[in-house]
Amino acid sequence: MSRLEQFRAYRERMNARLLDSGTQTTKRFFNLDGAAYRDGALDARTKELLGLAASLVLRCDDCVAYHVIRALEEGATEAQVVETFDIGLVVGGSIVIPHLRRGRELLDELLADQPGSS
Amino acid sequence: MSRLEQFRAYRERMNARLLDSGTQTTKRFFNLDGAAYRDGALDARTKELLGLAASLVLRCDDCVAYHVIRALEEGATEAQVVETFDIGLVVGGSIVIPHLRRGRELLDELLADQPGSS
Amino acid sequence: MSRLEQFRAYRERMNARLLDSGTQTTKRFFNLDGAAYRDGALDARTKELLGLAASLVLRCDDCVAYHVIRALEEGATEAQVVETFDIGLVVGGSIVIPHLRRGRELLDELLADQPGSS
Amino acid sequence: MSRLEQFRAYRERMNARLLDSGTQTTKRFFNLDGAAYRDGALDARTKELLGLAASLVLRCDDCVAYHVIRALEEGATEAQVVETFDIGLVVGGSIVIPHLRRGRELLDELLADQPGSS
Amino acid sequence: MSRLEQFRAYRERMNARLLDSGTQTTKRFFNLDGAAYRDGALDARTKELLGLAASLVLRCDDCVAYHVIRALEEGATEAQVVETFDIGLVVGGSIVIPHLRRGRELLDELLADQPGSS
Amino acid sequence: MSRLEQFRAYRERMNARLLDSGTQTTKRFFNLDGAAYRDGALDARTKELLGLAASLVLRCDDCVAYHVIRALEEGATEAQVVETFDIGLVVGGSIVIPHLRRGRELLDELLADQPGSS
Repeated sequence: MSRLEQFRAYRERMNARLLDSGTQTTKRFFNLDGAAYRDGALDARTKELLGLAASLVLRCDDCVAYHVIRALEEGATEAQVVETFDIGLVVGGSIVIPHLRRGRELLDELLADQPGSS
Repeated sequence: MSRLEQFRAYRERMNARLLDSGTQTTKRFFNLDGAAYRDGALDARTKELLGLAASLVLRCDDCVAYHVIRALEEGATEAQVVETFDIGLVVGGSIVIPHLRRGRELLDELLADQPGSS
Repeated sequence: MSRLEQFRAYRERMNARLLDSGTQTTKRFFNLDGAAYRDGALDARTKELLGLAASLVLRCDDCVAYHVIRALEEGATEAQVVETFDIGLVVGGSIVIPHLRRGRELLDELLADQPGSS
Repeated sequence: MSRLEQFRAYRERMNARLLDSGTQTTKRFFNLDGAAYRDGALDARTKELLGLAASLVLRCDDCVAYHVIRALEEGATEAQVVETFDIGLVVGGSIVIPHLRRGRELLDELLADQPGSS
Repeated sequence: MSRLEQFRAYRERMNARLLDSGTQTTKRFFNLDGAAYRDGALDARTKELLGLAASLVLRCDDCVAYHVIRALEEGATEAQVVETFDIGLVVGGSIVIPHLRRGRELLDELLADQPGSS
Repeated sequence: MSRLEQFRAYRERMNARLLDSGTQTTKRFFNLDGAAYRDGALDARTKELLGLAASLVLRCDDCVAYHVIRALEEGATEAQVVETFDIGLVVGGSIVIPHLRRGRELLDELLADQPGSS
């Protein structure tokens, strides 16, 4: 399995486990988390980029991975993801760079997988 | 002076002082910070909202104030700012709420000042 | 108004404003936040102390104030609040000390207000 | 070795190395860290849950692992650990979820090892 | 009282109160905190600058104020404090700027008070 | 490859990729980051230790690794690195300890590699 497939499989399995073993509070938080990124005054693509910027400055690799995946699914271009990386870098400082390295590696893997990317 | 005017005056005065008394590194960082939010693959409005989301989860009141002001200047609507508040809240948790209180207060003051807002 | 009264009045007013001007996501988050601290496998008193420890290490004065108030309302003793301060200090380091100064000042004000504190 | 055994072995070996190679300040900090969790106005079990809540919102996997292990040793139930996860989630936001995934996995491993867990 | 005098008076009064009302853990932490900055393989001046860099990236105004005061007392020059500001800015990002504004204001007040500063 | 060699190879490869695929903002940030640590009113050795202290309290393993490597290259002694670890520990709290474990392991590997260290 690629790093990307491992991430997806582990995330799916353990999220299911958290919901299965969790309280009403756990379940409600997960529902709310899903609902917050739906189209509204801002479209889902923009919201995923907001989630990406927030994840970068909080330096959470798994969250960065998730929002990069989702942003591309919602139609964000590579250039838009890269400019979101820049905002994360300028706001959050050099401490964000290790997360950009891993985020960029994942982005390259995702772009290589896209239909018509060859 | 209103809280908003105080913020603007202090920010302007002390940024000038930081640049005046700073090194080449200081000056280059400030220039870079300005350049990062210009129109590109993402427009300036979206970039200000990215900066706002990042500022909320890092819980920096002055940064929240600045990006709310700039987002409105770039044409963001109240509903778009509020949905950015939501992303900050869901990503960053209840710890963000005190910053939303102060951000909302500033937003109300800014909206009241807008031409045609009456 | 004392600092404590100011905190309570501002918090109440702006939370109402956030709910009034917010989205479904905003409202659901606030409901969830309230529900998470109710008696369960852990009693409400212990949960407020957990919220206090988390607020101390994230260094959020308003959150510290809120959880100190709520912990006392749920029957926590001064000694229990002080030992929670200690956990926050050891986990979060000297950077927590300014928040302990303000938290202690509020605790003293609250204890002076308690019936029978003479 | 299981992930749990690896964590324990590495932690023990490198803590010994830090103390062996450290200064008086290092040694005193480690002693203080141990002493802070002893029974007092709050019992050791509650203090470990406070340490767990603080570790979740600061998003430190090793610290989460350590306090989950210690909380169970001090008699915390699965339901109490799960409600502490909830407080961490609500205070710290969705950014805490990756740490809950890994914390839950460890908790499952620990519960499977307990005598009488069949 | 100037902002600097207020900071010093409040800090001194509430630190005394924390020690007076605290546990052995509280007292030992405060002692350890004092001891860590004494001359060793690094001199006290360098250690205060390390504390300043750490305080900047953790964005703690009171800690920044304290370490600027102490660094000057230990003989740090204005240029050395400014270069420490730069490291904080580059490592921690634009989110550090509001703390630099307040740190610079304090530094100017301290420099104006120094004997021979005319 | 040792852990140290892996870190260096991955860092070099992905930094090149970030620059190659990045914007002017990305490139300017990387240049600025390099320039900030050059000799000035503080020498490069001290600046690397400042970067190390900041990295410890922000709990970034890759940044800790990088600044430990660079501090030794600039002539910092083991005792000076250890005292910087102490400042990070006291300012940032027990949450820093997992990063000290990994930082110490790397430091041991680096010291073993130094000419004349046997």
